[in-house]
Amino acid sequence: MNEFDFIKSLRDQSRAQRHSSRILTGIGDDAAILSQFPGSDLLITTDLLIEEIDFHRSATPPQLLGHKALAVSLSDIAAMGGRPLWSMVSLGLPNDLWQSGFKDKFFAGYFAHANQFGVTLIGGDLSESRAGVVIDSIVLGQVTSGSAVRRSGAQPGDHIFVTGTLGAAAAGLKLIEIGARLGSSVLNSLPGHVTRSGTSANENLVDQPESRDSNSNSEPDHDSSETKSIETLLLRQLRPSPRVGWGMVIGAEHLATAMIDISDGLSSDLDHLCKESNVGALIRSDNIPTDSDVTFLCGRRALDPLSLALHGGEDFELLFTSRAEAVARLPKRVDGIAISHIGEITDQPGKIQVIEKNHIWDLRPEGFEHFKKQ
Amino acid sequence: MNEFDFIKSLRDQSRAQRHSSRILTGIGDDAAILSQFPGSDLLITTDLLIEEIDFHRSATPPQLLGHKALAVSLSDIAAMGGRPLWSMVSLGLPNDLWQSGFKDKFFAGYFAHANQFGVTLIGGDLSESRAGVVIDSIVLGQVTSGSAVRRSGAQPGDHIFVTGTLGAAAAGLKLIEIGARLGSSVLNSLPGHVTRSGTSANENLVDQPESRDSNSNSEPDHDSSETKSIETLLLRQLRPSPRVGWGMVIGAEHLATAMIDISDGLSSDLDHLCKESNVGALIRSDNIPTDSDVTFLCGRRALDPLSLALHGGEDFELLFTSRAEAVARLPKRVDGIAISHIGEITDQPGKIQVIEKNHIWDLRPEGFEHFKKQ
Repeated sequence: MNEFDFIKSLRDQSRAQRHSSRILTGIGDDAAILSQFPGSDLLITTDLLIEEIDFHRSATPPQLLGHKALAVSLSDIAAMGGRPLWSMVSLGLPNDLWQSGFKDKFFAGYFAHANQFGVTLIGGDLSESRAGVVIDSIVLGQVTSGSAVRRSGAQPGDHIFVTGTLGAAAAGLKLIEIGARLGSSVLNSLPGHVTRSGTSANENLVDQPESRDSNSNSEPDHDSSETKSIETLLLRQLRPSPRVGWGMVIGAEHLATAMIDISDGLSSDLDHLCKESNVGALIRSDNIPTDSDVTFLCGRRALDPLSLALHGGEDFELLFTSRAEAVARLPKRVDGIAISHIGEITDQPGKIQVIEKNHIWDLRPEGFEHFKKQ
Repeated sequence: MNEFDFIKSLRDQSRAQRHSSRILTGIGDDAAILSQFPGSDLLITTDLLIEEIDFHRSATPPQLLGHKALAVSLSDIAAMGGRPLWSMVSLGLPNDLWQSGFKDKFFAGYFAHANQFGVTLIGGDLSESRAGVVIDSIVLGQVTSGSAVRRSGAQPGDHIFVTGTLGAAAAGLKLIEIGARLGSSVLNSLPGHVTRSGTSANENLVDQPESRDSNSNSEPDHDSSETKSIETLLLRQLRPSPRVGWGMVIGAEHLATAMIDISDGLSSDLDHLCKESNVGALIRSDNIPTDSDVTFLCGRRALDPLSLALHGGEDFELLFTSRAEAVARLPKRVDGIAISHIGEITDQPGKIQVIEKNHIWDLRPEGFEHFKKQ
């Protein structure tokens, strides 16, 4: 049984034993929906981040870990069309990190991000952890009654949109895995203390252990562009921007029939949305918004930006479906972020196809999955 | 800076940046309180449980781990005087446990306990974990507007009460640490699958690696009593009973001025309550409800039951203070659990004293604390 089937079995058990009529949506969407007071529904979501599985501590300054822990849950509230209001965080730390400045930097990053969206930390828990950093991030939000956007409302003929660009976070992860690290100019700009013990001053924006070998000094312009691209991609992985503004606009103006955030990857998250809605999808590869930095770096490494855009996770963009009559009401940009119309919902449940040039092929969900069969 | 000082600094930061007037209580109590609809406040709490720090997996059947993960958070809602309604759980599992029956047994125990209190699981998260089991337990509840019982309302002259008995969970932990384990008759009665691979059938209620050496076969009655006592204490540690009924009665009938659950230990939790209320306390050692099984086993081992009752954690009893005029309205028992009147609140902030025979001594908070200086 894979992760998603197991969650489905928990949902069935939970539904069979539902004790409260105020649960509008329980397990199985980006957040749970509880009816609250007349006119308002409550949203709540939780995300578990475990060292070496969900993040690499050596590549992640504590401030950005605090930022990201909150961001992943803000993204879930955005994916319901809600406004985030309150948060909690449970933090397990090895004793040596407790004694260091780690926790202060973590919360400096956390609070800076919370303030950006008017979110207040209202609780949490602390525990020692023998084996690495463990974070559980909880965000509560609200939405006008009945306005929450579930995964399950897409209908054949709906247009499929995605905010921003895809593939950059996955490219950033690949760079981290081959040793790329944020440079000192970024580290020095983080909230709270910035000096990391053991890190010498470094005038480069990023450390690029790979690019120094593969590029000669005779290409200074390329090197500089590459450095900038690497930095951008590392930050897309380490400092994601949840699309809270887009989520609130879509929820408040009833612009979408279904929505999910792209955390596992477009192929997997579109699959989740289609399965919950009992529909299929046809998307056009040319319309998938790949990232220019990804394209630039992939071009130099013979990698495929489309593959990263389809299967790479953690972009935390929003994927949503809109009825034809709502499309004209969609804003061009929110918070500077544009959207792309990538395809249409079909009446073939579970079937997701890609039109690439003159060729149509089936898209399998190949995004991130915990406990994937090796 | 210790754990509690750090939480205080987070509370200060959170208060300075409070964005919402609906937060009635944020960081620093058993649960956060949010105003909800007219007549009702929402409670939310989270508890992080990490393997080898907060539980010993080898001594804890998965069903009881599921039970306890929920129980610790139910206890927080009870400590606010609230009714638990909904829950979420984030679970990090090593890959080998994912592939085993562990998760099904965990949720069998979790759901059985949730049903006991009419609580519905509405969400959560799953992640792989490289280093042991990690659980974050979240419970939401509600209380009539303004009826939540904070830690901060105790006043000089209030009477101090505690539900049930103290010290048994700590004694159970000590037994686990010297190798005692639940026997097959208990294991066979757990919800869900009961056969643990690698465990041979065992007709004893408990394995008692220590007692077998220390007791001769010429004391069959004592052995049988000891076995029963050990089993009881192991279950007080592994299968705590949150005082949900007491919490709801106290909240609904406005019987307490302040309340906290005893998770760290009476000395520490009374200290938390007194500090939040800016008062002191005088308690009588004779009135502290020690557990008869603890007394029995301690007597055979020259241990001090009073010390376990004062400093042992995880009893998940409720500690509350009541004005003199409310005392007559306190029920004798709720769900079969009695209360003990252990002392009075004084006007000496932070000073907690114990009357033991003709002697008065200062009680230091010596209960559980993460990141205690070694």
